[in-house]
Amino acid sequence: MEFAQVVSSLQDDLARVEARVRLAAQVEFPVLGDILQAIVDAGGKRLRPILLLLSARAYIYDIEPLIPAAAGVEMLHTASLVHDDTIDMSQLRRGQPTLNSMFDSGTVILIGDYLFAQSAILAAETMNPRVVSVFASSLADICDGQLREVFTAHRLDQTRAEYERRIYGKTASLFAGAAEMGAVIGGASEEAIQNLRGFGSEVGMAFQIVDDVLDLRSSTDQIGKPANLDLRQGTVTLPTMLLLARLNGSPTAREIERVVNGVDVSDADYSSVATLIEESGAIEESVDAARVFIERAIERLNLLEDHVVAEQLAAFANLALERTS
Amino acid sequence: MEFAQVVSSLQDDLARVEARVRLAAQVEFPVLGDILQAIVDAGGKRLRPILLLLSARAYIYDIEPLIPAAAGVEMLHTASLVHDDTIDMSQLRRGQPTLNSMFDSGTVILIGDYLFAQSAILAAETMNPRVVSVFASSLADICDGQLREVFTAHRLDQTRAEYERRIYGKTASLFAGAAEMGAVIGGASEEAIQNLRGFGSEVGMAFQIVDDVLDLRSSTDQIGKPANLDLRQGTVTLPTMLLLARLNGSPTAREIERVVNGVDVSDADYSSVATLIEESGAIEESVDAARVFIERAIERLNLLEDHVVAEQLAAFANLALERTS
Repeated sequence: MEFAQVVSSLQDDLARVEARVRLAAQVEFPVLGDILQAIVDAGGKRLRPILLLLSARAYIYDIEPLIPAAAGVEMLHTASLVHDDTIDMSQLRRGQPTLNSMFDSGTVILIGDYLFAQSAILAAETMNPRVVSVFASSLADICDGQLREVFTAHRLDQTRAEYERRIYGKTASLFAGAAEMGAVIGGASEEAIQNLRGFGSEVGMAFQIVDDVLDLRSSTDQIGKPANLDLRQGTVTLPTMLLLARLNGSPTAREIERVVNGVDVSDADYSSVATLIEESGAIEESVDAARVFIERAIERLNLLEDHVVAEQLAAFANLALERTS
Repeated sequence: MEFAQVVSSLQDDLARVEARVRLAAQVEFPVLGDILQAIVDAGGKRLRPILLLLSARAYIYDIEPLIPAAAGVEMLHTASLVHDDTIDMSQLRRGQPTLNSMFDSGTVILIGDYLFAQSAILAAETMNPRVVSVFASSLADICDGQLREVFTAHRLDQTRAEYERRIYGKTASLFAGAAEMGAVIGGASEEAIQNLRGFGSEVGMAFQIVDDVLDLRSSTDQIGKPANLDLRQGTVTLPTMLLLARLNGSPTAREIERVVNGVDVSDADYSSVATLIEESGAIEESVDAARVFIERAIERLNLLEDHVVAEQLAAFANLALERTS
């Protein structure tokens, strides 16, 4: 099954989710209101709402609590991107100017907080204590992942386990949470809930690994945000870790250390490290790591009785890898 | 009744709230962990948890959900102070160095977000959908109030209604929410819940007006944060509005406009506007406005059947005015 078919099978419900997100992003303030709507409209692929809806569809599809829950996870994701862009001082996101290219950082912090509040209001609207609880702990995990990124920046003595924990928080936790919320609202058994949560987590891990690969491989035009941003920020991702493991203390390794440390580094230095990574095969090895996560995720789908939904979820999972080809 | 007696009547429960707040602020990261504990320990007067507990005490005092709810409002308040200090670029709070005097602003944004997440986890722990809902909308109101402050900065064409809406969001909303959460957990009738919510709101309004007065009147040593911060940030508060209404277009009014606009203004200029406000009687008039809110709040307490709790809440309300003497 193609992902486009999955989206089209959810079309009406996604339109309702979209409308709720847009409503929640409405503010009275001049200028800001229009910009927030533009950010929401620029949207991404709405992966988290789709995962949440599919996870419920495998059981009982009760649309009333599903709409605010799905809008809530999308809003939480958007709020976290707004703060992310402030932290990174990014000027572009999804090919659009970011809020912090237009407002001072204090204002952008508040806008992000406001969007967090709106996402919490949406989660509370489900009137389901467990959904709210999953929502809150996903937010905590996201922050934990991002704090780990800050506290390990410019450090090359990181283990793969540390990298995985970091990307679990940053990305996989909300995928896991979206799947869990959907399954909880769908009235699935605890075993089925945990299984779908695991599915979401593994797909999220793959998405982030691929994101880290794309960051190194693409030009600004292709990904709608500055290229090699991770290297520039001293964020050590899997491809860099794999390359360094191969070089093991050689002069090239010391050159990479210098670039990751970020002292007196030029644009050309970043590009040349990106090229080194590309040529070493570390990119392919990283994509393989993502593939392992997707395989594990798809294996979990054997537990689903509804084979149509299982196929739809498999198409969702495979999307992570399609971005690399 | 003295406020100290109120606190001592809640001593054991406040100690449990305190322990929960401290636990929720625990992080693994080096340095940050100690600093967060110091921030939590420096504490304030724990006004919001006290209001929440008293509001329940007037009805059924079910301590198990009350502890996470009370810890949640305090944590929400702390998280919002952390972001506030980043926005204001304050170096001092409660007489202690702020996080943003020690970390870059990106890190402080994340720390604030992490504390928001912890507060949401605490609210979710009550397993009470209405408590969660009040919690989320209080957060939205706080952000709305702070955004209003940003968007009306340096503007003197503000009405008193706009000022009140701003401080409702910034401060009164969480007082109102704390009282509502307590009354909801206490199983009060809807009328009683709304009445206590109104009480909280009015006390919160008075607290913020007095805060705005203290900002103009105190030196840095007295309030543990920089003096005349509002003027320096172009935040127009009630005393400034009242002074301007008296001056009505005179040359002095134009001088104040210049200072509020914040272009080429010296420390001495800020002090001299503060002195003008002080000498004009606008301070007393502002304190009178706060007193009206407290009188209205105390009148609401007639609806309470439990006279001991009514007296305790009255002592709580009067605290707002005591700070001015």
